[in-house]
Amino acid sequence: MFEFTILKKSKKSRARLGLLTTTHGAVETPAFVGVATQAAVKTLSSEEAEAMGCQLLISNTYHLHIRPGENIVQAHGGLHTFMNWKRPLMTDSGGFQVFSLGFGKDLGISKMLKRAVGKREELDTNAKPSSLRITEEGVVFRSYVDGKEIFLGPKESMHIQGALGADIIFAFDECPPPVAGYEYMKQSVERTHRWAEICLREKKKTQALYGIVQGGKHADLRTMSAVFFASKPFDGYGIGGEFGAGGADRSRMLRLIIDALPDEKPRHLLGTGYIEDIARLVKEGVDTFDSIVPTHYARHGMAFTSAGKLDLGKSIFLKDTSPLDPACACPTCARYSRGYIAHLLRAHEITPLKLVTMHNVWFFNAYVASIREQIKKGQM
Amino acid sequence: MFEFTILKKSKKSRARLGLLTTTHGAVETPAFVGVATQAAVKTLSSEEAEAMGCQLLISNTYHLHIRPGENIVQAHGGLHTFMNWKRPLMTDSGGFQVFSLGFGKDLGISKMLKRAVGKREELDTNAKPSSLRITEEGVVFRSYVDGKEIFLGPKESMHIQGALGADIIFAFDECPPPVAGYEYMKQSVERTHRWAEICLREKKKTQALYGIVQGGKHADLRTMSAVFFASKPFDGYGIGGEFGAGGADRSRMLRLIIDALPDEKPRHLLGTGYIEDIARLVKEGVDTFDSIVPTHYARHGMAFTSAGKLDLGKSIFLKDTSPLDPACACPTCARYSRGYIAHLLRAHEITPLKLVTMHNVWFFNAYVASIREQIKKGQM
Repeated sequence: MFEFTILKKSKKSRARLGLLTTTHGAVETPAFVGVATQAAVKTLSSEEAEAMGCQLLISNTYHLHIRPGENIVQAHGGLHTFMNWKRPLMTDSGGFQVFSLGFGKDLGISKMLKRAVGKREELDTNAKPSSLRITEEGVVFRSYVDGKEIFLGPKESMHIQGALGADIIFAFDECPPPVAGYEYMKQSVERTHRWAEICLREKKKTQALYGIVQGGKHADLRTMSAVFFASKPFDGYGIGGEFGAGGADRSRMLRLIIDALPDEKPRHLLGTGYIEDIARLVKEGVDTFDSIVPTHYARHGMAFTSAGKLDLGKSIFLKDTSPLDPACACPTCARYSRGYIAHLLRAHEITPLKLVTMHNVWFFNAYVASIREQIKKGQM
Repeated sequence: MFEFTILKKSKKSRARLGLLTTTHGAVETPAFVGVATQAAVKTLSSEEAEAMGCQLLISNTYHLHIRPGENIVQAHGGLHTFMNWKRPLMTDSGGFQVFSLGFGKDLGISKMLKRAVGKREELDTNAKPSSLRITEEGVVFRSYVDGKEIFLGPKESMHIQGALGADIIFAFDECPPPVAGYEYMKQSVERTHRWAEICLREKKKTQALYGIVQGGKHADLRTMSAVFFASKPFDGYGIGGEFGAGGADRSRMLRLIIDALPDEKPRHLLGTGYIEDIARLVKEGVDTFDSIVPTHYARHGMAFTSAGKLDLGKSIFLKDTSPLDPACACPTCARYSRGYIAHLLRAHEITPLKLVTMHNVWFFNAYVASIREQIKKGQM
């Protein structure tokens, strides 16, 4: 079963309050989606992720195909049983990882990205990634674990996602890096559309399938992609790729895309969600979004609080007997001080990585719950 | 408050069932003592350590003095508050670390130890460690964190342990490595005795003080040390150092020591406890013992089970849907399979380190609880 009910539409923005119902339970939207790339939210057990307020998790087809392999997960009865997660689950199609790791490796992408964001340089290229080979059927790439050649295309992605058995799966897409030029991007979007039609044909009835709108920072390609997906019977829509350098660019682009998508279907923004961006995304009509921000920052000792980010690795926190966030009701804040966590981080213990992750994930979920409350009260 | 009540003495061995009562609650003995070197049982939160059955934890004076410093811990209201551990706590005196790290560094001790255990070579030396300087007042050594020179003696150890505020503290001792020769060991034991008398004088009424019997593998020195400590008003007795190469040597030596100690006082064996040794130690009259075995092995993917140790890092476990130990009632075994844990270990996730630690700590505590049950029933 898969149903999306819009409970309320904001009069102030495109925000809406919804309920996404699957066979594994319902998700109140807007919702933060916890990232469990390799079938675990990093540092947490599944029951901890649930206790921290996660309603929905997203795992990764690419990673799970490579390790442990979908046959292993299937032998355990599917991803839900494997990771003992009883609530709804998504799997990403693997497209993003295949391409970002491939193109990224060729172009030293993270370095270029930083430069592009910092200086707004023009980095367009119509070069094709050389460490992967793209054909009409899919992509040949090398495993990041052992360098072995692997082929992944729309059929393979659907087959793997079928074996993993998440409630919501994504169509296999190409997700070119922001440095990709217009010509490359246009061909890529058209190929992604052809792959999406294959995914629709391969789809099992028991899983909801989201198509992924691509097109990078090019408004016409984004519109073309959204119009294409809107015309096809997907259960919901992912919005992937980069939008340009700033938050305003993204908002403008999201509006364009979301205007072209059917109102009654859920929209998932892939791999985005700095805390300061969330309200804006929701106001543009995003229903769910996944983000590694709370878990990634936690493992670097950074806690999100109602008074901003704290770098707990700093020695100034050692004597601080207050909780990470005095306004927070999470188990970490109920039990441990900034000083204790700062000490454990400086002592290279594993325990604080989990304590801060618990807090950050709780904080993100609580923040999005407060956004739902604001929509309910007509304040957003 | 500090009280030790012997509830039952075995007729088959020197084992006894006891109750160690402190202001932070009671400990049923024999008991496994969880190791929280830097104020956390590695990978666990304090409430998890308690939920896994830990009645008593031991932290380390040496480590906490260096990082974060006892003044920081005191600013948090002492170690109990700092780590939010509500049950009884011990702190080791720091002697073991000062000396093992010092002597160990000089002599490449772990390599020599392996050789000694494997081949029973004679490795005695009357050389003094050169990377630390021992005087009648204590030891000058270098911090393992920043190389800064630090002085630690009986007065300093008592002062630090007083500030940390554990229920049970240990007298500052020298713990020479097994390669130390007879002459060195004799002088060392005598110095440890002089230091112990200083510790008795410096002791606060609110903390129980254990003296530590030393003497290495030399029966006459062990007896001399035990007789000395027995004659002094310690609240309990630690037994430290190495005993020789095998389990039989240790049993013989423990019998010798324990015969010389007052029956009504508790005995703690420091830093020992392979699962296969525990029953033997208890039979010799050990009441409590601390061991890094369950936590250390867990972080290397090794699980203790009723059918022996399992190396979960092996790929043969990937398809295994059974829990770590079908006979175990711990939260990890209730929720996760060997296959899931094997996958997460192979994927270098942090989550499984905690899942296996929880299981191993539960397993050790449950095993010692079963030993208490056997003593109660007259079976041990």
